[in-house]
Amino acid sequence: MIKKIAGGVCAPMGFRANGVHCGIRKNKQKKDLALIVSDVRCTAAGVYTTNLVKGAPILVTQRHLADGYARAVIVNSGNANTCNADGVEIAEGMCALVERFAGIPAGDVLVASTGVIGQKLSLEPIEAGMEALVEGLGAGSSAAAEAIMTTDTYKKEVSYSFEVGGKTCRIGAIAKGVGMICPNMATMLCFVTTDAAISHEMLQRALFEDVKTSFNMLSVDRDTSTNDTLCIMASGLAGNDEITAAGADYTAFKRALHKVTVALCRMLAADGEGATKLIECTVKGAKTRRDARLAAKAVVCSDLLKAALFGADANWGRVLCALGYSGADLDVERIDVDFRSKAGVLPVCRKGAGVEFDEDFAKKVLAEKVIYIDVCAGDGRGRATAWGCDLTYDYVKINGDYRT
Amino acid sequence: MIKKIAGGVCAPMGFRANGVHCGIRKNKQKKDLALIVSDVRCTAAGVYTTNLVKGAPILVTQRHLADGYARAVIVNSGNANTCNADGVEIAEGMCALVERFAGIPAGDVLVASTGVIGQKLSLEPIEAGMEALVEGLGAGSSAAAEAIMTTDTYKKEVSYSFEVGGKTCRIGAIAKGVGMICPNMATMLCFVTTDAAISHEMLQRALFEDVKTSFNMLSVDRDTSTNDTLCIMASGLAGNDEITAAGADYTAFKRALHKVTVALCRMLAADGEGATKLIECTVKGAKTRRDARLAAKAVVCSDLLKAALFGADANWGRVLCALGYSGADLDVERIDVDFRSKAGVLPVCRKGAGVEFDEDFAKKVLAEKVIYIDVCAGDGRGRATAWGCDLTYDYVKINGDYRT
Repeated sequence: MIKKIAGGVCAPMGFRANGVHCGIRKNKQKKDLALIVSDVRCTAAGVYTTNLVKGAPILVTQRHLADGYARAVIVNSGNANTCNADGVEIAEGMCALVERFAGIPAGDVLVASTGVIGQKLSLEPIEAGMEALVEGLGAGSSAAAEAIMTTDTYKKEVSYSFEVGGKTCRIGAIAKGVGMICPNMATMLCFVTTDAAISHEMLQRALFEDVKTSFNMLSVDRDTSTNDTLCIMASGLAGNDEITAAGADYTAFKRALHKVTVALCRMLAADGEGATKLIECTVKGAKTRRDARLAAKAVVCSDLLKAALFGADANWGRVLCALGYSGADLDVERIDVDFRSKAGVLPVCRKGAGVEFDEDFAKKVLAEKVIYIDVCAGDGRGRATAWGCDLTYDYVKINGDYRT
Repeated sequence: MIKKIAGGVCAPMGFRANGVHCGIRKNKQKKDLALIVSDVRCTAAGVYTTNLVKGAPILVTQRHLADGYARAVIVNSGNANTCNADGVEIAEGMCALVERFAGIPAGDVLVASTGVIGQKLSLEPIEAGMEALVEGLGAGSSAAAEAIMTTDTYKKEVSYSFEVGGKTCRIGAIAKGVGMICPNMATMLCFVTTDAAISHEMLQRALFEDVKTSFNMLSVDRDTSTNDTLCIMASGLAGNDEITAAGADYTAFKRALHKVTVALCRMLAADGEGATKLIECTVKGAKTRRDARLAAKAVVCSDLLKAALFGADANWGRVLCALGYSGADLDVERIDVDFRSKAGVLPVCRKGAGVEFDEDFAKKVLAEKVIYIDVCAGDGRGRATAWGCDLTYDYVKINGDYRT
């Protein structure tokens, strides 16, 4: 029984969080520094970008997570601390500031940065902001969720309660990232907390398994970022028997984790840079799960289809085109496609060929904010869902002059 | 000695061409039917899209090319004849019309279609237009080049003369396609003619080898079309000894072919849907040629970088980001990047880290119509060039409502 609850990363027992404006950004209205801390040492795990160009904070976080434990995450927005000669030193410096101001050993602090690549990040504003950041840790999840935003137009946080071995546990998360989004092992930035007791090994395994059907199926612009980071900390304060192996408890935990990650994928896609619509493509009946994943992801990645959906144009040939180059093993003459939304279901393709449809009804279906593209590829057992957004004038506008 | 000459596909001896408006399109100002014929039977070869969803004309062209010979190409724009239950029948019907009106056996006719996917194509307007099309075959290459355009804003044709074994030969081509462009074996549509004598086998080999460094290195929007077709016909009327094996003559032919295909790649990219700039990325010093190709293509494919260049924003971090996820084996700390144009050279990255630059000069360099991105990846021997264009409001506009 998974139930939505309030509180974000502070919903699980033992966690506090805050976000402040410290001055990395010029705009004083925009928070730019976040901190999440746990009262107790947590088992922890992370997955990171597969980009060869990795943000310096990722190297430091990997080092600090090597023992499987963590107690805090410090995050800045406005600067990615990537492609900087002194990047690792700065990232280590951020962790040392958490030790100095919050008393948490630097080796138990995870660190992340997001913003422009290749501009030097100074520790000065961060140091200046630490006192207010730590003193205000009662502020909660929303302040942290706001502080990690870049081009995001709203904060992303979720939390759920679930049962493990008769004990009520909680899981919460915040995330950011609506451009340079085609995660490959993780999204731009996502921090998950839980009070379930679970070993580092099982936590890491759960993350690896989960991202295959959550963040790895998300794209805004097919640009895999240099700073993608997904970290989870488990305080164990819920009092369940520690999950140390696969079984009913692990399955219950994974279900709750998946609720969190899929909810965030949908939020990130819907807020994709310039986006007006969330696109959710489900492919079923494929020969294998891998074929379904390749096919669904290719559909939500097609710039042509994304532009057509922005214009509420039922140009289903672009769905077929994307399926055809996806790399999935498909029998074209068996493919059925429907567009679907709150306004109704619009069948557009049966057995690989077009079917007649009413253009007025099509416009109505595609005028909605959430568009489902349902592909039936045959009678195989492969099934997958991918998330994306439409391509709009505003995507071009936002990215035509991002640095200034 | 390769020299630019006039004439397009009619520059080589033995070829005539025409293009007319027959009524597939509603706009009477826009030609929609093209024909290229040879006075003699030609050796011929083709490469096609790797998309599993293939336009019906491709199936027919492959069948008619199976014997290695051809004498004509008929092409319509305005309708891709793809995902239609009767598509093959219609494509065969177009070839039969060439037999009836021009006396060329249908089995020697190649056929191609381009336009909207999944709408029925009728033979009626084509039949009605055949008489004028055949009677006007003296019109020449430009009429055909115009008739195959879809969202292209100008026609693409080139021709060169070159020497094979002391004989002067000619090669010419027309091409179209500025959206749904990420060819994988060929571009949207490209038809090459030559009067060099060359066997079908060597012609096919030359095409396969050439596209690796020409059309396969081109992208407007990473959408590999369903109808990509590149065909070549060689009349042999130049009188050189037939090229039947590798050697100096084959090399001379391949050099001329590459001049043609690269010139067309640059034209197609520069006219990319909505584009204001041609982007040419060259990667040198990579460990292998494959690494260089992956890296160069990833750079010109990045929506983020494309939008930044539209805004003349020197956001070089996006170049590094694309290199990092390209799949190429690169040492990040060895990468140098320059932006370059007629206005000058702007070094932006040395050994994987940013270098200071003057923003005003950067704007000047990036305000030009042709932007070169020069990447030095180390001291390896891998080198490759890729072509693309910027991402603009007009790409979104053109594709938001393409069908209507």
